[in-house]
Amino acid sequence: MTEAQDAREVELIERVEASFAGCDNDRLREVMQASVRHLHAFMREVRPTEAEWTTAIEFLTAVGHITDDRRQEFILLSDVLGVSMQTIAINNPAYANATEATVFGPFFVDDSPAVELGGDIGGGASGEPCWVEGTVTDVDGRPISGARIEVWEADEDGFYDVQYDDDRTAGRGHLISDDDGTYRFWGVTPTPYPIPHDGPVGKMLEAVGRSPMRASHLHFKVDAPGMRSLVTHIFVRGDELLASDSVFGVKDSLVKDFVRHTGEPTPDGREAPEWSSVTFDIVLAPAG
Amino acid sequence: MTEAQDAREVELIERVEASFAGCDNDRLREVMQASVRHLHAFMREVRPTEAEWTTAIEFLTAVGHITDDRRQEFILLSDVLGVSMQTIAINNPAYANATEATVFGPFFVDDSPAVELGGDIGGGASGEPCWVEGTVTDVDGRPISGARIEVWEADEDGFYDVQYDDDRTAGRGHLISDDDGTYRFWGVTPTPYPIPHDGPVGKMLEAVGRSPMRASHLHFKVDAPGMRSLVTHIFVRGDELLASDSVFGVKDSLVKDFVRHTGEPTPDGREAPEWSSVTFDIVLAPAG
Repeated sequence: MTEAQDAREVELIERVEASFAGCDNDRLREVMQASVRHLHAFMREVRPTEAEWTTAIEFLTAVGHITDDRRQEFILLSDVLGVSMQTIAINNPAYANATEATVFGPFFVDDSPAVELGGDIGGGASGEPCWVEGTVTDVDGRPISGARIEVWEADEDGFYDVQYDDDRTAGRGHLISDDDGTYRFWGVTPTPYPIPHDGPVGKMLEAVGRSPMRASHLHFKVDAPGMRSLVTHIFVRGDELLASDSVFGVKDSLVKDFVRHTGEPTPDGREAPEWSSVTFDIVLAPAG
Repeated sequence: MTEAQDAREVELIERVEASFAGCDNDRLREVMQASVRHLHAFMREVRPTEAEWTTAIEFLTAVGHITDDRRQEFILLSDVLGVSMQTIAINNPAYANATEATVFGPFFVDDSPAVELGGDIGGGASGEPCWVEGTVTDVDGRPISGARIEVWEADEDGFYDVQYDDDRTAGRGHLISDDDGTYRFWGVTPTPYPIPHDGPVGKMLEAVGRSPMRASHLHFKVDAPGMRSLVTHIFVRGDELLASDSVFGVKDSLVKDFVRHTGEPTPDGREAPEWSSVTFDIVLAPAG
């Protein structure tokens, strides 16, 4: 590149940045000016043709057009570019031995059913029964009673209840940890499923040779007074998708042993020829 | 930031970049990996809260939802962030004394009316008559005959024909340069107007204290065999908006003297108590 060309491109960036100088919201100004610098740095690095720029505009337009109340393709895009996970990393710095956070995903629903300790969150979701138990403690190992534990998961066919058209509630619920900080419930053994891939994000993944599959997981959101809210998953050790999770959600500390049981009695005497069990001890960081 | 936190954020970026390593389209891989690096660099610099990230998702969703066949809010966003202008800068490097390019904008229409040299492109557009004349030459001053000159502009109320609901064609046309490379036509004197600002991009401009106004201008697109296609505007010297054009399209070399005439005869004897005139000599770079 000639010096004159370089100067011309840099001068433009300075002019755009300066156009935000009068913004009296300090944070907004900082964010917009940073977005200008990084966007233009990207443009100057890849030097798109005008046709490529048009393709990018068309891609974003398609992402916008498929997005509605039930489908959020921009979150999906943020997910598959690791941006959602980076937001989690930035906002949930490691704290002692506290359980690590991972992506929230688009399938959480407020007002999930209350489930008794030892009860079943399945609500008719298809799949092999899975017994989940553990404790909720602070980083010093002190039990936290009364913690609200939200759990949600896809069924055996890879769908969350909200992805069906029949308003069912299944594979989700909330529990309150016991006086000694323990909890336990029945769910279904997690299985792998693809993120919605019939839209522009799916087409992009296909074009670059990436799989839309997510590693098998079970979602948790845990809240207790004075504690940092924890949004996380547990993953299934041995799942071959652990290394290629399409939204980069896997962390080693969240991979758990799901033990298979055939013909063994269940913890609460329920009849189940095949079932699995997993222990997940939740450690909450202090708030703030 | 602790070293462990830094390492965690960097490791995530490396994993996301690596996920594109199998893309067998070299250019696509390069663009996607660069977008990952720059997006994450932005995230790590501004360190958005989860609520801020949600606001960004909601903003992009709104941009997508207002976009349709007649309204392209993503192009508008690209325009007001200077990204469209940077694309122009990258793809139209300065070449000797060739006329500089500027943004294309969303209001060009294929199949504009053919207008004779000296004819009127107004087609009923409101505004003060403006006589435009000049030459088309190569960088050595050799006249280019037969060049196709597309011109389009807003009317006195600041609207292009396509912004009206009545399918009118006004304020646009194409001419063919004469044997000696000259051209001339009647249009209307350009006036300032806002970019569409009733959508999310307009809200953003308002929030940061920026004006949606564009400096007064007249669009040109000039094509001739063997020459680089030129997309540009001319601007009106003295317009107080020159320094704050909302899409950063102004270049000094494109600011022209629009001479006001009161009671003087027009070049072709047309009756006009008040009119303006401008000379714009177009110099085309060679193709390739």
